[in-house]
Amino acid sequence: MNAKTKKREITDSLSPRAARLGDHLYPVIMAGGSGSRFWPLSRQLFPKQLLRIIGDETLIQQTMRRVVKGAPPDRVMISTNPAQAESIRVQLREWKDPLKDNFVLEPEGRNTAPAIALVALELVRRDPHAIMLVVPADHVVKGQREFDAAVSLASGLAMEGLLVTFGITPIRPETGYGYIKPDRKTLLAKQGKLKGHPVDRFVEKPNAAKAAQYLKAGDYYWNSGMFVWRAATILEEIRRHQPALSRGIDGIGRLVEQGASRAVIDEEYRKLPSVSIDTGVMERSTKAAVVPVSFRWSDVGSWGSLDEVAAKDKFGNVVGGRVVDIDSKRSIVYGDRRVVATIGLEDMVVVDTPDATLVCPKSRAQDVKKIVEILKKQGAPEHLEHLTVHRPWGSYTVLEEGPGYKVKRVTVNPGGRLSLQMHHKRSEHWVVITGTARVTRGDEVFDLRVGQSTAIPVETRHRLENPGEDTLHIIEVQNGPYLGEDDIVRFKDDYGRTADR
Amino acid sequence: MNAKTKKREITDSLSPRAARLGDHLYPVIMAGGSGSRFWPLSRQLFPKQLLRIIGDETLIQQTMRRVVKGAPPDRVMISTNPAQAESIRVQLREWKDPLKDNFVLEPEGRNTAPAIALVALELVRRDPHAIMLVVPADHVVKGQREFDAAVSLASGLAMEGLLVTFGITPIRPETGYGYIKPDRKTLLAKQGKLKGHPVDRFVEKPNAAKAAQYLKAGDYYWNSGMFVWRAATILEEIRRHQPALSRGIDGIGRLVEQGASRAVIDEEYRKLPSVSIDTGVMERSTKAAVVPVSFRWSDVGSWGSLDEVAAKDKFGNVVGGRVVDIDSKRSIVYGDRRVVATIGLEDMVVVDTPDATLVCPKSRAQDVKKIVEILKKQGAPEHLEHLTVHRPWGSYTVLEEGPGYKVKRVTVNPGGRLSLQMHHKRSEHWVVITGTARVTRGDEVFDLRVGQSTAIPVETRHRLENPGEDTLHIIEVQNGPYLGEDDIVRFKDDYGRTADR
Repeated sequence: MNAKTKKREITDSLSPRAARLGDHLYPVIMAGGSGSRFWPLSRQLFPKQLLRIIGDETLIQQTMRRVVKGAPPDRVMISTNPAQAESIRVQLREWKDPLKDNFVLEPEGRNTAPAIALVALELVRRDPHAIMLVVPADHVVKGQREFDAAVSLASGLAMEGLLVTFGITPIRPETGYGYIKPDRKTLLAKQGKLKGHPVDRFVEKPNAAKAAQYLKAGDYYWNSGMFVWRAATILEEIRRHQPALSRGIDGIGRLVEQGASRAVIDEEYRKLPSVSIDTGVMERSTKAAVVPVSFRWSDVGSWGSLDEVAAKDKFGNVVGGRVVDIDSKRSIVYGDRRVVATIGLEDMVVVDTPDATLVCPKSRAQDVKKIVEILKKQGAPEHLEHLTVHRPWGSYTVLEEGPGYKVKRVTVNPGGRLSLQMHHKRSEHWVVITGTARVTRGDEVFDLRVGQSTAIPVETRHRLENPGEDTLHIIEVQNGPYLGEDDIVRFKDDYGRTADR
Repeated sequence: MNAKTKKREITDSLSPRAARLGDHLYPVIMAGGSGSRFWPLSRQLFPKQLLRIIGDETLIQQTMRRVVKGAPPDRVMISTNPAQAESIRVQLREWKDPLKDNFVLEPEGRNTAPAIALVALELVRRDPHAIMLVVPADHVVKGQREFDAAVSLASGLAMEGLLVTFGITPIRPETGYGYIKPDRKTLLAKQGKLKGHPVDRFVEKPNAAKAAQYLKAGDYYWNSGMFVWRAATILEEIRRHQPALSRGIDGIGRLVEQGASRAVIDEEYRKLPSVSIDTGVMERSTKAAVVPVSFRWSDVGSWGSLDEVAAKDKFGNVVGGRVVDIDSKRSIVYGDRRVVATIGLEDMVVVDTPDATLVCPKSRAQDVKKIVEILKKQGAPEHLEHLTVHRPWGSYTVLEEGPGYKVKRVTVNPGGRLSLQMHHKRSEHWVVITGTARVTRGDEVFDLRVGQSTAIPVETRHRLENPGEDTLHIIEVQNGPYLGEDDIVRFKDDYGRTADR
């Protein structure tokens, strides 16, 4: 391919084509991360993307809002796993209907390439001309206008069969990212200040000296993990560079067409090679292009990196929650309802959650994942989920758990309804503290108001519903020899669930 | 008084008298401290003496065990205030009967001199020859044998009309304590290695240079706040050096004899001058004597001072609770049931409690009291008491509190019984989670077992009792517009209480 020729083609044809680009643009939000690096705020089942780390919305909400500026919400695809899908649906409930059929679930994390292949496979089925805008759910981008322009420019290049990545302008000699060097001599496309170039080379995480040199030279960019390409192109390139993965994905495609069971498909997915789209495809492809951008970006990879994007007080502290501080500087202190008192901290991270607290210097924030590993080995629940767990009908918070009992506050959204269910091993007591509860107990159906209560004996069918317009809060006291969430028999469920609560 | 002559008298007569000393020795445990310096483990209503900071017992339990080696428990007097008396009785329940009539309550903290005068007044009434061994409830002493010997030697001197203090051998150039210089040329008494001398001089908290000089000179001792004297002598010396206080105390004595009401007596007590026994009497008296001791002692005055007495791991950390640590050194990390994760801390203090967390460098541990001041000004409950509150019948823990509701776990000891009571503003729901509850509700009395529940409507007389031999645990859900502990009408109470729960 003659790059010079291609350049002329693209720039010539961009204007008329631009109008049509949006018609085939499918934002793909990669939301399958596990997020141990923001523990204890993030948990295995509640990763970083679901956190309100910066601003009033969670990272995935911000990501969604960013991409629907350029494409209708019913074209946004969510790539995640079954464990997180429910929490994501809850957070993106503003787009509940458009997103209904757009969740692509990977049964198990096999890195980015299989997840992207799965979405691409679905998209070519829906639209052979589909252009994918792949964005991680948990990055911060500030600069919507430039982002939109970059997507537009990249989409044009993608139409030409290129794999386009955004190159972030480095602001420090970071050793934790990969770098991209554009072939500046070849201009593929141009739109305002933005330019597209072929990739000259990819550089894996460099050492400190190299990173400093790249920063100074100004001709290297951070690999942001955001991509634009045709779904057909990336499948082709996967076939070329990852034939085993490609065969596996094709096999799964055939199973789906044949109407194979979920279990069979999941089994096949687990056999796929675990490979990242960067090292597995981008770095091997001759079609890689880069659009250097200057908008503010952060992958907020650890507590220490909050500094880049969060608002600070005059002493450089990032503070949230009920914090009482004396003399601290350049520290990150996150609390919630409990009091967090800090004195004379410098460059420290303190994160306080209802069931776990983290204290470390900023410089050691990357080691939080080691803490999570230790907790995992100990079988401690604190690595897995929060005391508050979100459900499609609302949420519940474990207030206390002890031998033979568990106390929860259960919140049911207006109109929300838990499944008609039964427990073999536990009885439950419900006391209404706000709102109105409609209770099904055996053959009876009755309403309870504030201060009223009922008891659900073992092995009795029951259902809790909020028929009112205010949120319903009840206190539930469970008694029994086994109180696991899996002691549940579901007879009917509004949310199509068969297991768990 | 001729010291030389006195010395001969005492040493001559010590042996025959020693046997009789124990008959008149009354340990007085000073347990009125407010303890903001160990926040958040200590609270205004749960001060340091009630904490299990070191070892298996709380500081006041250790203090009690120390003094009953030298005197029968029914001669131990507890000087405290009404707010703390209940918690202290609970912790000293092993000596419940002997201590029954030995609590002397100061209605308000007026420093040590009035509190000591009040106890002395009571003791001369009980025994004109009473010798007081005054010890703070919240100090650590390691070396029972030397302590006993020092008490014995000091008692002899006290019999002679002296005010005896123990001089602690300094181990660092501390600027936070007062120092005592013995008049070494005058030996008042000797027993083994222990010697008693007149006090040459008292030195208020010195500067660093002076403190270093005292440490090097070896002829200065720390003022420990432990004293031995006849009750009659200290009253006499208070009369001489604090006439206003003395008149006030005499007035209170007359009111007590006349059977005046509690309110009238409290009113008089509040008028007493606030003065410490050290500066107000000891430093002015010509009768001050000192017995230098070498046992290990600490007033554990702040989190930083734990180093002196607590057991450390091989990296110098003092650790308690569910702590997960990587690479920390010389730090104090106290948790409880929640996970506390620490990475790379050096010389830090982290204290995590159910409703508040503290993080500061050891060097700033003294400033914890400033945090407590701030919380007090904010009206935040976290300065005042813990989520778990002890009562004579057991305890309760607030699990959650929100608008219009409160959830508690209530623990009732075997045989324990709450008052027959009523609330104007709240209904209550009780669910039994362990043990058997005997419930009085209006005119009914019935038993509830595990998994059973009952509701107590507003303005209904009720009582909760544990008739069984196992501890009773219930979950109580309160509903109502006002949920303060003071919405209680008591009809009958096993513990003689009229207000609060």
